[in-house]
Amino acid sequence: MFIRNAWYVVAWDYEVLGDTILERTILGQSVIVYRTADGSPVVMENRCCHRAAPLALGRKEGDRIRCMYHGLLFAPDGVCVEIPGQDRIPPTARVKTFPVVQRTRLIWVWMGDIAKADAALIPDTFSVQHPEWRTKPGYKRFAANILLITDNLLDFSHLSYVHEKTLGGTTAIAEAPQEVSGLNQQGVRIQRRVYNTTLAPYHRRLGNFPGLVNRWWDYSLSVSGMFIMSSGVQSVEKPENDFDGALLFHSCQALTPEAADSTHYFFSHAHNFGLYDPTITESTYESIVLAFDEDKRMIEAQGRVLEKDPTREMVHIAADGPLIRYRRLVKALQVQGANDDGCDKAGRVADYLESGVRRKCSVR
Amino acid sequence: MFIRNAWYVVAWDYEVLGDTILERTILGQSVIVYRTADGSPVVMENRCCHRAAPLALGRKEGDRIRCMYHGLLFAPDGVCVEIPGQDRIPPTARVKTFPVVQRTRLIWVWMGDIAKADAALIPDTFSVQHPEWRTKPGYKRFAANILLITDNLLDFSHLSYVHEKTLGGTTAIAEAPQEVSGLNQQGVRIQRRVYNTTLAPYHRRLGNFPGLVNRWWDYSLSVSGMFIMSSGVQSVEKPENDFDGALLFHSCQALTPEAADSTHYFFSHAHNFGLYDPTITESTYESIVLAFDEDKRMIEAQGRVLEKDPTREMVHIAADGPLIRYRRLVKALQVQGANDDGCDKAGRVADYLESGVRRKCSVR
Amino acid sequence: MFIRNAWYVVAWDYEVLGDTILERTILGQSVIVYRTADGSPVVMENRCCHRAAPLALGRKEGDRIRCMYHGLLFAPDGVCVEIPGQDRIPPTARVKTFPVVQRTRLIWVWMGDIAKADAALIPDTFSVQHPEWRTKPGYKRFAANILLITDNLLDFSHLSYVHEKTLGGTTAIAEAPQEVSGLNQQGVRIQRRVYNTTLAPYHRRLGNFPGLVNRWWDYSLSVSGMFIMSSGVQSVEKPENDFDGALLFHSCQALTPEAADSTHYFFSHAHNFGLYDPTITESTYESIVLAFDEDKRMIEAQGRVLEKDPTREMVHIAADGPLIRYRRLVKALQVQGANDDGCDKAGRVADYLESGVRRKCSVR
Repeated sequence: MFIRNAWYVVAWDYEVLGDTILERTILGQSVIVYRTADGSPVVMENRCCHRAAPLALGRKEGDRIRCMYHGLLFAPDGVCVEIPGQDRIPPTARVKTFPVVQRTRLIWVWMGDIAKADAALIPDTFSVQHPEWRTKPGYKRFAANILLITDNLLDFSHLSYVHEKTLGGTTAIAEAPQEVSGLNQQGVRIQRRVYNTTLAPYHRRLGNFPGLVNRWWDYSLSVSGMFIMSSGVQSVEKPENDFDGALLFHSCQALTPEAADSTHYFFSHAHNFGLYDPTITESTYESIVLAFDEDKRMIEAQGRVLEKDPTREMVHIAADGPLIRYRRLVKALQVQGANDDGCDKAGRVADYLESGVRRKCSVR
Repeated sequence: MFIRNAWYVVAWDYEVLGDTILERTILGQSVIVYRTADGSPVVMENRCCHRAAPLALGRKEGDRIRCMYHGLLFAPDGVCVEIPGQDRIPPTARVKTFPVVQRTRLIWVWMGDIAKADAALIPDTFSVQHPEWRTKPGYKRFAANILLITDNLLDFSHLSYVHEKTLGGTTAIAEAPQEVSGLNQQGVRIQRRVYNTTLAPYHRRLGNFPGLVNRWWDYSLSVSGMFIMSSGVQSVEKPENDFDGALLFHSCQALTPEAADSTHYFFSHAHNFGLYDPTITESTYESIVLAFDEDKRMIEAQGRVLEKDPTREMVHIAADGPLIRYRRLVKALQVQGANDDGCDKAGRVADYLESGVRRKCSVR
Repeated sequence: MFIRNAWYVVAWDYEVLGDTILERTILGQSVIVYRTADGSPVVMENRCCHRAAPLALGRKEGDRIRCMYHGLLFAPDGVCVEIPGQDRIPPTARVKTFPVVQRTRLIWVWMGDIAKADAALIPDTFSVQHPEWRTKPGYKRFAANILLITDNLLDFSHLSYVHEKTLGGTTAIAEAPQEVSGLNQQGVRIQRRVYNTTLAPYHRRLGNFPGLVNRWWDYSLSVSGMFIMSSGVQSVEKPENDFDGALLFHSCQALTPEAADSTHYFFSHAHNFGLYDPTITESTYESIVLAFDEDKRMIEAQGRVLEKDPTREMVHIAADGPLIRYRRLVKALQVQGANDDGCDKAGRVADYLESGVRRKCSVR
């Protein structure tokens, strides 16, 4: 039960260079991504209309893709333009394509109702490519339902435990209050600030602060899985709005469901200090990769536990507020009929907060 | 949904030497193959009648097989002849055996109605063992339903694409017309000839032709998966029936379903030139193995695509004629009730050409 | 369909040292095992009551376990004693714990009705830790239903075949008569004695006997999978009750279902000779490990054969008497309602002796 009417990241720009034909499964659908001669990205179903051979095993010929089983040739709009040994090409000989847009370094695809594919809805990911920011983007695949990852992102108390030795460093994060607000039914915004605390272990590599620091996070998560965050750390000795010497970050993280139980994670954690020191970019990237591995280990393990008994009730705590709010938004969109299938495995996991009243699903 | 009343290859002779007990699954049934003292092959169910221990872990004792769990001993006809510590042997103590015949170097088994097991029906595989032919036989396992492999064999246009750099070399093969005829409802015969064309890349190792060549293939495929082909290449400068200097091949390829989604592939591609140059035999074998790996990669990938949505309609092209004809023959035999189970996974894939009207199967 | 009201071994003492948090699945339930500061073992469900994170990824803090996802802290009785950032702890915030007792070097757990958890029911495993016995304990996981292993233990004729080159050495074992008796509906006792026979291959390392020997085995197997055996070998030249120079063994083997198709196997094969020669202990251990690998190979292969056709009838032989008797006892306990789920995969395999009248199970 995916939210289909939304833009999803299908790939980083660097994954589709030259004659690359990238295969990726998005919302349960296997597609290929390639570029035409002028560099425009194309997203096409990974199944030849003839006998279902994967076009990912095909060959790029200029703007076109040739199926390398029996030689059918397809234009970027999916229309078959050549069948070897045959003059007439039946009008049904075409492969489905999807609306696609590249913004900054991200390639976005729309898997839902084409009439609603408005490029103005694509989130602003300026810090991925901006003269005042530096970032090394990355990708991970989580073997878990997207909602287990959004749960994680919506409760930063986990920084104190999952990331104790990387992004956390103190239980003060878990104990700090947070402000939660809505985003016009399109997501949740959270602000958390910790005063007079210690540096995160991984920040020790990046800056020198003589004593205690203030730390803050201000982020939003959209229903379709886009996470945008401004965060920073500054010495307690500096006035409120003085960012001189502060470490400021801007993070763009896009979650795209691969299937009900796996999710693509595209991330960029940009910094706007040390712009001409590439070791800072590299070190920031490595720290984020390490921290995401900590998340991945916990979330995938949690998913395996849940899978054994997905309907069992959970004990809610105060920190669950944003999660519950966010899941209600997602649920409402799913019920609205944004999806073509009424009941699936993703739904089963999504439902677990409402474990008392679950629809019966016959799917495995 | 297997065609049971047919001879299938269960093994090459060289797979069952000395005291070998070979385990192989054929038509979903696990069997063992071994030889009695006089060399006669025996095919027996791989399940002790006592407590279902696999006889493949047993021991050959002369003509007999001892189950090495509790020591029951079975004669080549499957009858239990010894139970340790017990005098009386119950008449039900027996293991099923199957009719088996060795011809040339192939061991054939009959998994259907024993009354119909007529050895005269076994295909003629003379070139596997013949003074005027040389061959090195081989085996591969394809993780795909047998019909995806027969589809492949029934449309040689794929030589131009899948085998572009090995058996193909030119799109002229895909563009050439072919003659299709029937084999008394027992299969399909196809002849294809390409004039004034270039050598296949792998033929360049085998012969020297100054200019262009003619190439031809004449083959039949039986409903039970036996493929027999005469093929060759000759200089365009030679008259029609002059085979002097030509490269002539005779190919025997036997497909045996292992299960609904996997198939044994026994092959021999014999040549009748360079009879005393073993490097030609070796080179021909290596070329075929390489080409079959190309097929395997494409067919298994196609199978995975189909598995996700097996009922979706396909767009037919002119080249699909023989495939559709062949699948109708197979279907007719299946409907005749050649099988004991009415509805299975093989059937599901087999049905995809008739995707509009599919029976419901509850099997996975 | 597990027998729940019984003590099961969950771990050897050496598996839970220091701050270890051992994860193990018992009767289909994932649990953690750890020790409080005074060394008392604790068995707790491996699922945080908050959001199902595995406590196996948690941290031991004194007597307590902290969930390392969001920081909840649990006392050894399963009660949550701390939620970061929150004062009130809801009374439902607790994790299930299980009665646990350590005896000799084995940690026993009770997964059934707590009111019935009587420690007096724990089997006597004296030889695991006793001044007159030496042993090196071991563990293996069998990918097979527990009943296939109890079948194996209840018919020692397999020593002649499965263990021909290790524990067996002669077909005389399979041919020897045995005495079978009951254990108050709680198990089966078997005595087998072989006169004037040869040494087992592995005994040749342990003792020097000039000529023939007598060998004997006296063992019981409880319905919950506890196997206790006295066995030995003595020269035929010694009088009946003279154990001087004999090789005497006492074996404690505990089977604990992990799931329907896998079983934990905890074993100790103690010897009471050569008490001050550690090479004898090591050699005995190695022999047992080797022999259990022989069993494992056969039993797992048998399980795979059975899985393909679990309802097919078997041919019974005389040696099956104890197996059938034992399975009837197990069945009776299962039918009594010792289990919470009425029909599962274990049941399916358990039922195969009564293959004619099987209940329909919809489980996979």
